[in-house]
Amino acid sequence: MTLLFSSQGMGDAVWRDTLAPHLPELDLTGPDWRVWPDRVGDPADIRVALVWRPEPGCLAGLPNLRAILNLGAGVDALLADTTLPDLPLARMIDARLTSGMTEYVVLAVLALHRGWMDWADSQRAGRWEELPGHDPAARRVGILGLGELGADAARALAALGFSVQGWSRTPKALPGGVTGFHGPEGLYALLAQTDILVNLLPLTAETTGILNADLFARLPRGAAVINAARGGHLVEADLIPALDGGQLSRAVLDVFQVEPLPAGHPFWTHPRVTVTPHNASPSIPESSAPGLAANIRRVLAGRMPEDLVDRVRGY
Amino acid sequence: MTLLFSSQGMGDAVWRDTLAPHLPELDLTGPDWRVWPDRVGDPADIRVALVWRPEPGCLAGLPNLRAILNLGAGVDALLADTTLPDLPLARMIDARLTSGMTEYVVLAVLALHRGWMDWADSQRAGRWEELPGHDPAARRVGILGLGELGADAARALAALGFSVQGWSRTPKALPGGVTGFHGPEGLYALLAQTDILVNLLPLTAETTGILNADLFARLPRGAAVINAARGGHLVEADLIPALDGGQLSRAVLDVFQVEPLPAGHPFWTHPRVTVTPHNASPSIPESSAPGLAANIRRVLAGRMPEDLVDRVRGY
Repeated sequence: MTLLFSSQGMGDAVWRDTLAPHLPELDLTGPDWRVWPDRVGDPADIRVALVWRPEPGCLAGLPNLRAILNLGAGVDALLADTTLPDLPLARMIDARLTSGMTEYVVLAVLALHRGWMDWADSQRAGRWEELPGHDPAARRVGILGLGELGADAARALAALGFSVQGWSRTPKALPGGVTGFHGPEGLYALLAQTDILVNLLPLTAETTGILNADLFARLPRGAAVINAARGGHLVEADLIPALDGGQLSRAVLDVFQVEPLPAGHPFWTHPRVTVTPHNASPSIPESSAPGLAANIRRVLAGRMPEDLVDRVRGY
Repeated sequence: MTLLFSSQGMGDAVWRDTLAPHLPELDLTGPDWRVWPDRVGDPADIRVALVWRPEPGCLAGLPNLRAILNLGAGVDALLADTTLPDLPLARMIDARLTSGMTEYVVLAVLALHRGWMDWADSQRAGRWEELPGHDPAARRVGILGLGELGADAARALAALGFSVQGWSRTPKALPGGVTGFHGPEGLYALLAQTDILVNLLPLTAETTGILNADLFARLPRGAAVINAARGGHLVEADLIPALDGGQLSRAVLDVFQVEPLPAGHPFWTHPRVTVTPHNASPSIPESSAPGLAANIRRVLAGRMPEDLVDRVRGY
């Protein structure tokens, strides 16, 4: 009953050591823990793959693999691998992953609402410049995506008094005080009345490039954009003209087409772009281990994992 | 039934125009609105003074003055005027003044918790540097002062999952999930277990200079400090040694001994001091006008105003 850990970027040891106490029936410090590419052993042993941005093709030669468990919320990188075995695929849903994203969204929205970056610009210039107060009830925050992450951020922003509205592909049950929109017309309606736009959509064929010049033009002049989902959502070449022309006032970006953001990329130095290093909600092994262990145990017992991804839908 | 507006810094016109519809029985665009020092008219006309940091002595020669209504929460500057008439003195309590301060405190706490200033430093250096996630339940926020402002900030921070504790001179009823401390021993107990300290105390003889080297030394090494109350709370000369020695990691300051913060003051350029221009919660005439008008009407009818200040206590 062997697990394979496969990631480009994340280390395996912290996951092994955090999972081990939750799976005492496995020998995770021994033969039941394998790591791509150096410690795979006999491919026929492996029943469950734990992955985060694995090397494409790495799961293709495992004859007894039963399920793939993703160590994060987004599966877009996985689904881009055309050799991915047609097995149950689950994404991670973890309270801390959600609360970390809500922290980031609340922080970025409050920073835009109160002018934190303007204060920072003033401090660097040695300038004492008070900003006017704004009623949060008159500040319209529009959230794209109302899954686990979007719904929780919407709830927290509504609790702070913001006027919150959200958009999703299909209608969703919403937290109190949040107005819902869906479908293409719903998107246009939401954009027309959004001062701060927050993108938390999954990256799919339909949402790739959704943050583009046409969308920016549908926002009220001077709106701000926060992208905490995927770099592929934003047409990067469209952003700076929208900022320089005044259609957008500011952008806060955690994700990029190429990560790490390359040296010399204009986002690094644009005075109205805030860059954070794909850090909005880091996966935290200690908080996700109990749920992940339960999902592993389910698969090893011959059952389906929870939090399954719909591959046609893309999330 | 005449009002006197007296402020060093705030303009009178916005208050007059915002109050006028709420007090139709007065002629505020005519003889019932007087302004210090140029349009006082006959001092015997004046019944109510509306003040924000008025010039000391300006209220001393008004024989028929019945009450002084402060256009903000803090009355420390007023009480420092030894010529202030011994009349009922009320401070402003306004839902927007409270929610604005809560926005600022939540923003500053989240910025420290998530490393927003570290991200900004990295962006300026063109450096992609991910920060580890921290469980908010393990981040201990200590709030000094549990009046209107402190209690509301505590509630909002607890709702975001932080471990919140507060200190007040006397015991207070507290929002759910918030631990209370009081008295001198309680202060030391709170400091010993506070990662992010938020000062929202009133400025009184007892609290002047409370943020000093001795207090910093009682915090865990690497704690951060937010001062959103009054510049007089902080012994400014003690802050930079505490930061440079590593006892404090960062300071976020909205208030200063001298405001505007003078050119050349070391806070402007210290890499771990964030300066905001006494802007944490600007007074907003449109939201406070109804309550202020009701208090004016109460005084004109011969009753006591609400939200009275205890001059001995100092707030």
